[in-house]
Amino acid sequence: MRAVDLIRKKRDSGELSREEISYLISGYTRGEIPDYQMAAWLMAVWIRGMNRSELAALTEVMLHSGQVLDHSEIPGKKVDKHSTGGIGDKTSLILAPIVAAGGLTVPMISGRGLGHTGGTLDKLEAIPGFDVNLSLDQFRRVLRECGMALIGQTAEIAPADKKIYALRDVTSTVENVGLICASIMSKKLAEGIDALVLDVKTGSGAFMKEEADSVCLAEVMVETGKRMGKKVVALITAMDQPLGRMAGHSNEVIECIDVLSGRGPADLRELSLELSAWMFYLGERTKSVDEGRILAEAMIATGQAKEKLRQGIHLQGGDARIIDEPQRLPQARFHAEVPSPAGGFITATDCEQFGIALAMLGGGREKKEDKIDHAVGLEFHKRIGDPVGKSEPLATIHYNSDAKLDEAKALIAGSYHIGEREPREKRPLIRRILGA
Amino acid sequence: MRAVDLIRKKRDSGELSREEISYLISGYTRGEIPDYQMAAWLMAVWIRGMNRSELAALTEVMLHSGQVLDHSEIPGKKVDKHSTGGIGDKTSLILAPIVAAGGLTVPMISGRGLGHTGGTLDKLEAIPGFDVNLSLDQFRRVLRECGMALIGQTAEIAPADKKIYALRDVTSTVENVGLICASIMSKKLAEGIDALVLDVKTGSGAFMKEEADSVCLAEVMVETGKRMGKKVVALITAMDQPLGRMAGHSNEVIECIDVLSGRGPADLRELSLELSAWMFYLGERTKSVDEGRILAEAMIATGQAKEKLRQGIHLQGGDARIIDEPQRLPQARFHAEVPSPAGGFITATDCEQFGIALAMLGGGREKKEDKIDHAVGLEFHKRIGDPVGKSEPLATIHYNSDAKLDEAKALIAGSYHIGEREPREKRPLIRRILGA
Repeated sequence: MRAVDLIRKKRDSGELSREEISYLISGYTRGEIPDYQMAAWLMAVWIRGMNRSELAALTEVMLHSGQVLDHSEIPGKKVDKHSTGGIGDKTSLILAPIVAAGGLTVPMISGRGLGHTGGTLDKLEAIPGFDVNLSLDQFRRVLRECGMALIGQTAEIAPADKKIYALRDVTSTVENVGLICASIMSKKLAEGIDALVLDVKTGSGAFMKEEADSVCLAEVMVETGKRMGKKVVALITAMDQPLGRMAGHSNEVIECIDVLSGRGPADLRELSLELSAWMFYLGERTKSVDEGRILAEAMIATGQAKEKLRQGIHLQGGDARIIDEPQRLPQARFHAEVPSPAGGFITATDCEQFGIALAMLGGGREKKEDKIDHAVGLEFHKRIGDPVGKSEPLATIHYNSDAKLDEAKALIAGSYHIGEREPREKRPLIRRILGA
Repeated sequence: MRAVDLIRKKRDSGELSREEISYLISGYTRGEIPDYQMAAWLMAVWIRGMNRSELAALTEVMLHSGQVLDHSEIPGKKVDKHSTGGIGDKTSLILAPIVAAGGLTVPMISGRGLGHTGGTLDKLEAIPGFDVNLSLDQFRRVLRECGMALIGQTAEIAPADKKIYALRDVTSTVENVGLICASIMSKKLAEGIDALVLDVKTGSGAFMKEEADSVCLAEVMVETGKRMGKKVVALITAMDQPLGRMAGHSNEVIECIDVLSGRGPADLRELSLELSAWMFYLGERTKSVDEGRILAEAMIATGQAKEKLRQGIHLQGGDARIIDEPQRLPQARFHAEVPSPAGGFITATDCEQFGIALAMLGGGREKKEDKIDHAVGLEFHKRIGDPVGKSEPLATIHYNSDAKLDEAKALIAGSYHIGEREPREKRPLIRRILGA
């Protein structure tokens, strides 16, 4: 077998066999197939696509390129959630304690933010002392002790994905349903889980702006997971405006604690409960999703979920006092309001732009090497459908340096669409559920 | 400007500007853009294509990536021919002396054989002592002295093409009209010529098997050359069977001397005269192609062309005695006949297979690193339309090692299609002339 022939086959829209995909991916991971051949193949895949059996093969080969964790010594089901990301998307920090408090195990391997979206690891690192770089042994110990642990991708987990992802990033082969699916599913299935709930975002703040594209990705991921013997559902959820009122790292941790305390914004609370409910149901902790929802609500109402978060932070070296004293999180020195340029109703947002403004202020990464200022954040005062008066604040910026403040202000103000009339239909937060 | 954005643009079928193409190609040639980004871009170009203005820009940027020769100190027009290659395609060694003897200058930069096709440089190296690696100064000196010189691509000539070609070879991005055109034209125009005759092969022994594809490549090359102020015509010529009776390096040199001596097979003689005629016409040596043909015939009849070859060989360090004593060329120790498996008429050939058989016997390269045995060759006894008796020889193999002799014999025998009836129509050698 020769890489050049397999590149040609995909270039000519051919179907690669499992053996051929395995030859390419393992050869590349071992360094025997060079970057330039993999780059040509990835571009051919991007343009020509893969069918379902090629995709299943790719996912499996990438999954087995490293260690597949086995938590069978921990009793009960292991479940996780994966989101395709967006602005203010912070549910992991809410779900993991709810579901662990409810009796399931949540071995969560997360990513960092890049471009307009945030990453769970970065949010956790806003907590002083929190260590996301546990060894696999430490990961297992924390999991056993409290039922949840949140770490980054280690060298042992899906090394093929790590290497391929870095190459896709510099060869414009990122946004492809098959490659995204294989990347996500190979990492998630390596966690050693029984069930997975996917939160596939759609709208102006998501990677997939069109609902049809989100549905397509969701279907492919659900099918791939099921082929590999896992329980998987996907929720297609709205990302046409920020989730919750807060974006930025300290800000989002605070909002998560609010939800776990029975407060917090309605949309974030609703989505967190729904995702938790599905995790309880797929993890066979409850007989129905509705029962799962009741259990999730109880975990919040009784304070058990918040206590679980406290325990989790403590076990990963973080300062758990932030739960009662959020001022211990990094705080921005300055606040500035973004006044509305006009009066009327909010009809839509260019949601991705909020993430770009946040990164511009230091609260996100424009390039991989960038350092994040965890204190920087945005607070959103208006949601789609809300009335707004001219000069009334649309958002508040929490910042430390005013270097790009005016640019960020203008970007945020310009990202709210303001119309004269109230928008007729309110689109639901949870659009569709696939795979149930 | 960032390479990753230009890759995305082509991936999404966008049109790249001249500046964007220049940024990519110059950056790659200087080593600032890595192989993997160029590989992804090449695959996107292969699949999405380039329009005419992108192609012109690519050709120009590649041309100017190195030195563009200037022979203005030599009086008269400089002309050359380029062929897309095939089996027994040896016209360069005939044309160059005819046209130089006729008073024009032929600065010919040629390539080596790979896969099923031979290369002019390899054929020249069958001549003991012949040096194809002249410096540009030596090249100019030979040109000035005898009006023709034949060398390989130096480091100074179109270095972008050299680097990109090597990458295309290992990333399955070779067979693309735009990329082929830019590669050929950037090299040929760097020779400092006024006019170029293209011999674009079509049929089972050519890279382009379908005449429509050959026409498409020819049109693009003619247009690109004309945009750059050169006189260019393209002849679409048959490669559905070997050109002449001989393939292999010593064999082909001998056949060229035969033609220059007024003998040789009719098809090779016909094509050589036609190409020479067009070179004389485009080089403004004659007022018409017909006059060019008469001049070419005269150069053979008077022996001037043969004397020009003798002078050229001598000036490039070769043993010019081979012209009268062809046994001084490397000779194979053994000959073996390939008998016809059936009686009837030759209706077609799988011409490419002859080249593969030749390479298998050591008379060509399967991989770039392979050494060539110049003595190995094939002699073809039957042409399309000829009657053949069962067991009558179809071809004779000249070989030194019988390691793969049986395999080669079977391949050659199987590559003649033998039917019961004489094929109805004889397809002409010269199919079309474009750009005239």
